[in-house]
Amino acid sequence: MSNGATRVLESAELGHRITKRVYARDEPKLREALLNAQFDLSRSHRGPILVLISGVEGGGRGETANKLTEWMDPRHIHVLAFGPRTCDEAARPGPWRYWKALPGRGKLGIFMNAWYNEVMAEHLRRGSDVELHARLQSIRQHERMLSDEGVVLLKFWIHLSRVEQKKRLKELERDPRTSWRVTRADWDAYRIYNRSHALWEHLLRETSTAEAPWYVVEGTDERYRYLTVGKILLKAMRSTLAAKPVVRKRASAPPAPSVIDNVKLIRNLDLSQTLDANDYSAELEKFQGRLAKLTRHKQFAKHSLILVFEGVDAAGKGGAIRRVTGALDARQYVTVPIAAPNDEERAHPYLWRFWKNVPPRGGITIFDRSWYGRVLVERVEGLCSVSDWMRAYGEINQFEEQLVEDGAVIVKFWLQISQKEQLTRFRARERTSFKRFKITAEDWRNRKKWHAYERAVSDMVNRTSTEIAPWTLVEAEDKYFARIKVLKTIVARLKDAL
Amino acid sequence: MSNGATRVLESAELGHRITKRVYARDEPKLREALLNAQFDLSRSHRGPILVLISGVEGGGRGETANKLTEWMDPRHIHVLAFGPRTCDEAARPGPWRYWKALPGRGKLGIFMNAWYNEVMAEHLRRGSDVELHARLQSIRQHERMLSDEGVVLLKFWIHLSRVEQKKRLKELERDPRTSWRVTRADWDAYRIYNRSHALWEHLLRETSTAEAPWYVVEGTDERYRYLTVGKILLKAMRSTLAAKPVVRKRASAPPAPSVIDNVKLIRNLDLSQTLDANDYSAELEKFQGRLAKLTRHKQFAKHSLILVFEGVDAAGKGGAIRRVTGALDARQYVTVPIAAPNDEERAHPYLWRFWKNVPPRGGITIFDRSWYGRVLVERVEGLCSVSDWMRAYGEINQFEEQLVEDGAVIVKFWLQISQKEQLTRFRARERTSFKRFKITAEDWRNRKKWHAYERAVSDMVNRTSTEIAPWTLVEAEDKYFARIKVLKTIVARLKDAL
Repeated sequence: MSNGATRVLESAELGHRITKRVYARDEPKLREALLNAQFDLSRSHRGPILVLISGVEGGGRGETANKLTEWMDPRHIHVLAFGPRTCDEAARPGPWRYWKALPGRGKLGIFMNAWYNEVMAEHLRRGSDVELHARLQSIRQHERMLSDEGVVLLKFWIHLSRVEQKKRLKELERDPRTSWRVTRADWDAYRIYNRSHALWEHLLRETSTAEAPWYVVEGTDERYRYLTVGKILLKAMRSTLAAKPVVRKRASAPPAPSVIDNVKLIRNLDLSQTLDANDYSAELEKFQGRLAKLTRHKQFAKHSLILVFEGVDAAGKGGAIRRVTGALDARQYVTVPIAAPNDEERAHPYLWRFWKNVPPRGGITIFDRSWYGRVLVERVEGLCSVSDWMRAYGEINQFEEQLVEDGAVIVKFWLQISQKEQLTRFRARERTSFKRFKITAEDWRNRKKWHAYERAVSDMVNRTSTEIAPWTLVEAEDKYFARIKVLKTIVARLKDAL
Repeated sequence: MSNGATRVLESAELGHRITKRVYARDEPKLREALLNAQFDLSRSHRGPILVLISGVEGGGRGETANKLTEWMDPRHIHVLAFGPRTCDEAARPGPWRYWKALPGRGKLGIFMNAWYNEVMAEHLRRGSDVELHARLQSIRQHERMLSDEGVVLLKFWIHLSRVEQKKRLKELERDPRTSWRVTRADWDAYRIYNRSHALWEHLLRETSTAEAPWYVVEGTDERYRYLTVGKILLKAMRSTLAAKPVVRKRASAPPAPSVIDNVKLIRNLDLSQTLDANDYSAELEKFQGRLAKLTRHKQFAKHSLILVFEGVDAAGKGGAIRRVTGALDARQYVTVPIAAPNDEERAHPYLWRFWKNVPPRGGITIFDRSWYGRVLVERVEGLCSVSDWMRAYGEINQFEEQLVEDGAVIVKFWLQISQKEQLTRFRARERTSFKRFKITAEDWRNRKKWHAYERAVSDMVNRTSTEIAPWTLVEAEDKYFARIKVLKTIVARLKDAL
């Protein structure tokens, strides 16, 4: 507090007040305006608006959230307060619970003590500056992504000076009718106020970005606090409503971003590799057995397994997946087939539906198609803008990093067959009555875009084959060969991890 | 096994087999038929079809589920295997996890080892006949309700004789490639085969009902097992598709079922009761403080609190709810406002969306309107058939029983005001700009049905005010009086429970 770097919070320790008279005059107007804006928002398909409330103990965070729900239509506000992780939250990566609770377009969400409190608590407990730096960096990236996806972030820091905090806690405690509001944790927080102050300053400065700045609000006077938060929220709602509607550029031929032309990666695959039926049977049993043992290993309880299957149509993803699940305990895994998003999914950032399906530790999720749709079908078909899929590579890498950090083993497969083989399989499917459902007009349409897909796949592998989550290209012209390669790869990756 | 009561399973110990030749001939036909039926089902909005697979260890339950997903389009089958409850499941009433996983209309779900295994495991562990009897009774009621709601239940028991079970486990164990499939639990199950056999017989007999009979299938020969299960499933799908579409009788004036005319209950409420502003402030702080202490009490971790708010339009539900939440820790509660169901909710039994929101132990859910919509708005507006809302009373009582059994405290409020007061409030809302959103054309329409609602409310209170979950009628003409009555009631009920 002495190094002249305390500017961020200084302005919130000046004793801002609003008189009863002014409040009585301004409050009804603000309230009406908020209600109207909320109504317009709910019809607009804009947003969502996500209000984060953090700050010091006793500053009135909870009361502020309550006031907002009282002012507005509570049916369209969703308030969530985050505490220590519950047991199902603790079994999954940190961001999971925030993703699960993310409101959809047209909605207003209030998160109390979300990711910032988690970072602060952890830092005060363990305190490595390097780690803090990395966490804040990751938060910035995350908020950037939310903002790019249309989420309007409003971050409020409700502040009290040390003297005011003590006064407030004493006040509450003295009155027998409110003494229950003060807990030991509040006094613990007070005791480390000075130590915390420097951390708050640092955190607020490091995470005040153009797309998600902090609003520091002095908590002492509740009238000031309510009106200030309310007015900022109103302004944000109005500008969200006034913003030009996002036009999805359906670029029929997206301009090629300057990526090295590396389709060789795909074209150079040796698709002539085969495996004969006898070897296949033996290997299948062998690697299924190994996979079974590994996923039942004691150590596996500390990990999770995420399998991603992408590939050319008719490359045999389904068959490969079945050979994997044949070795798994049915209680342990879920298969998630990914098709076009439904309305609710479309109202959320594209990663939302995948986050919802992240397995707990000890669990396995198999994605039959995945978040890579963003840089494959959405890119090729022009379903999102060029900048949308261009930024997706980085977003996806962060997503996978967050999973791996928590112990997940991610194995990603691209199954490749030749154009000729695809035609043969399409024709065969049309002939075999019980396979007819597997072939649609869309498959024939996709086939015509073979080269566009080839380029998209190459870019994808290039930009998202990271050390922690590498791609495995599978020569799938021969089904037996492909299935065994898939099983072998999973077994090897699991062995490395355990 | 000696008392001549073993008939149910006898037929599944005879050694049914199907030759390779027959299988090769029948399987492709069955597969095609299943695929077609599945395709039709997915477009039909019928069903869902829920396949339960239980049976003896080593009988091939998992393989059977795998075979069905292999035969059909895996994108429209959802397989779930239930084991010991996970920590988030253990924190909620037993049925919660089955409700959460219930497929919607047009879908096919496979539940492995669902509620039957739970009952058997518990009985073998603790073994009270009285309890078993009660559980089976509750299962019958539950399945009856599912069936009434359009869920087609197919229950398969995959059976093996004791000799066959031993043979099967030995076989698997001998082969180094499959030995991993046999666990200690399998041999434990084998050891108590004889003891279990009587229980299975009893259970199958007691829960084979007209709407959900058991199909006992011998597991020894996999070809026989696959074809038998597949054919029964096909038949069920076809008859689901062939059934006449359910016509929702929108009876404009539903015939009065023979219920005593007891609207006096409502009309006799003394709406003249009031509380002055000073007393209100004092009492509010007092009871909010008590509520705060009770919900933070150590013992509360073993319970949960479910608040139901129903009432005449403009009776002040929202205001009462806010006075309750003012005393609660924001991390502990969620408010769930109930409006008309969305598409996904409509595709499920009406209780589904409420089950999803059941709080974990230590948690609180506040329903702003609730499952009672079934016997209020849906009845009065003719949105469901007479038999639908008539059976709802019993279904709701069972639902609440299941919650209370698990430690939930359910407090249900009906807020009543006079017709005159309602008119005054409607008019005032239209005048106050920030309350305008609270009044819609629907409110004016509902008002015209005052007497129909009066009767529906009286029937509701009469039939669902149980000892474990009684209704509290709240005279809400005076808002202060109403809010304090609500708070007092919750405090008293919690005190009793803790």
